[in-house]
Amino acid sequence: MDSYRISGESLAEFVTELLCKAGMGCEDAAFHAKALVQTNYWGIDSHGIIRIPAYVERMENGAINVRPNIKIRKGEQSLYILDADNAAGFIGARKGMSHAIENAKKSGIAACGVMNSNHFGAGALYARMAAEEGMIGIAMTNVKPLIVAPGASEPVTGNNPIAVAIPTYSDFPFVLDMSLSVVAGGKLTLAIKKGEKIPMNWATDKDGRPTDDPKEAFNGFLMPMGGYKGLALSYVVDILSGVITGGVFSKDMKSMYANPEEPSETGHFFIAIDISKVIGKNEMKQRMELFQKYIKSTPMWEKNAQMLIPGEIEYQKECIRRKEGIPVPETTYKELIELAEKYSVTKKLVIV
Amino acid sequence: MDSYRISGESLAEFVTELLCKAGMGCEDAAFHAKALVQTNYWGIDSHGIIRIPAYVERMENGAINVRPNIKIRKGEQSLYILDADNAAGFIGARKGMSHAIENAKKSGIAACGVMNSNHFGAGALYARMAAEEGMIGIAMTNVKPLIVAPGASEPVTGNNPIAVAIPTYSDFPFVLDMSLSVVAGGKLTLAIKKGEKIPMNWATDKDGRPTDDPKEAFNGFLMPMGGYKGLALSYVVDILSGVITGGVFSKDMKSMYANPEEPSETGHFFIAIDISKVIGKNEMKQRMELFQKYIKSTPMWEKNAQMLIPGEIEYQKECIRRKEGIPVPETTYKELIELAEKYSVTKKLVIV
Repeated sequence: MDSYRISGESLAEFVTELLCKAGMGCEDAAFHAKALVQTNYWGIDSHGIIRIPAYVERMENGAINVRPNIKIRKGEQSLYILDADNAAGFIGARKGMSHAIENAKKSGIAACGVMNSNHFGAGALYARMAAEEGMIGIAMTNVKPLIVAPGASEPVTGNNPIAVAIPTYSDFPFVLDMSLSVVAGGKLTLAIKKGEKIPMNWATDKDGRPTDDPKEAFNGFLMPMGGYKGLALSYVVDILSGVITGGVFSKDMKSMYANPEEPSETGHFFIAIDISKVIGKNEMKQRMELFQKYIKSTPMWEKNAQMLIPGEIEYQKECIRRKEGIPVPETTYKELIELAEKYSVTKKLVIV
Repeated sequence: MDSYRISGESLAEFVTELLCKAGMGCEDAAFHAKALVQTNYWGIDSHGIIRIPAYVERMENGAINVRPNIKIRKGEQSLYILDADNAAGFIGARKGMSHAIENAKKSGIAACGVMNSNHFGAGALYARMAAEEGMIGIAMTNVKPLIVAPGASEPVTGNNPIAVAIPTYSDFPFVLDMSLSVVAGGKLTLAIKKGEKIPMNWATDKDGRPTDDPKEAFNGFLMPMGGYKGLALSYVVDILSGVITGGVFSKDMKSMYANPEEPSETGHFFIAIDISKVIGKNEMKQRMELFQKYIKSTPMWEKNAQMLIPGEIEYQKECIRRKEGIPVPETTYKELIELAEKYSVTKKLVIV
């Protein structure tokens, strides 16, 4: 597939104007656009600007409320639930994590659940918000059921992602951002394109039977990472994001692709831990340096190989892409140009 | 291996007296004994009374401080770190979770880290303390490094367990209690005994190379559940339990078996979320019933099969063992009797 290398800066300006002209408040649009471009900088292209056409369609048909009235639904002191009023997931999630961060400044730890939200992109976006404030951030969301237990024919929960960011005060924070399936669905599409078989522990056919045929798997379900352990963890994410928030959960979840015209009523849960209450910045920096040294000095089978620190690949990718631009597939590029015409976007996509 | 079925009640009384006479404060001894017996009730025999001889040895040689002065090391409001003064892990952990629960009553969510502790047994013990108070409890601990990344020859972190308990207001709470290796080390011992090979994704030889020979694996390391995902999650547990608490972490961890005469300086981290601030008891009960109904009504490949709810196996096991007694291996039984003679324990082990 051909792609263009577009400057991230021009991409962010372009998308800001597009989302703003499509009806979103311009400050929200700027956050949303930067978040998508940032996700591409990290190399997580599946959750970056490739999603814009789908998001804009949902903004147009009202599935995403572009002018949400996000308000507190329940809670007190360090634990709140927000009703995101069907806002874009990025906007609902930003508000949720901001709430947790502000409250953690007072009490040391705070949490905020969000209901009636939408797809929030990469969880790392929100976990990192906390790390930038010197806090440990935890972000999670429920998604439509798509992982099956061994022996089951139907999924009960999604591969509900969990992201954790931890300040290191070095080049990049420690960042774990994982979905709870063995692999992402995108790996099936890739295997289909390449005509390859997939390992038997990745996915199942539509009846929940493990398969090595990516086409069968595409119409089936994903398998939970770590088997029943990952499955139970996906329940925990669903309970925090959907059950206690008063939102929807499990089989009542909707998908932004299967139900493009309906709010997905997605739930999120955020925790911010203000570690400055228990460890000074210098001490944290030193101790995380030692932790990372232990990882980096681990002997490997292959000479010159080295273990990676969670967040390192994203950091390296960002350094490159800030110089060389973000690869935008030709189809996405065309879709963006069409949307620009429709909404009279004046900013240009600058090819690097 | 022969075993005796001992009444749990008599076992708890016997162990309380033993630990008390071995020097532990009798109230602490009672908690510790009940926690061990409770773990056996759940069927988690690897973390139950089988460990008593090792614990008592450590109490005797001072690795476990039987009269600890557990005090606040750092923190304020909803986030504290305790210095457990090399207490038994059960005693340090109980104090840590109690702290989190008390503070969560005020603010909705609270956390407490514990440093200078020891092996705390099953994490579910502490997570469930929160669930009994109508809260969501999260408990974790670091352990000596024993899981290796693919391609690495040495471990950097342990299979650091995470437990989560969630109130359901039905027969049993939702309880996830998992270590972050694919399987527990005990499965290797079992395979050796049975003369069976093990799957290639369970463990490695002493150089970190995957092996299907359980004897090679016994001298090697375990593999992380979910590959690099579980590995990164083990880092998170280690950072919360060891880095931010001011305790030891990663390669500086010690093992209660490899270093029987030294305090293990284990760290724990506990979070309590007082969900009563955001959802009423009745609503929580109804929503968890629906969640569990979705799990239970999932169609399975085999007729009459049914998915299990996390915590269900432990509940069923407890119902049986409260009636039929706890199976105590003959070797453990003999060790307990020897300890009873040494410490003039008057309580008797009642065979059911």
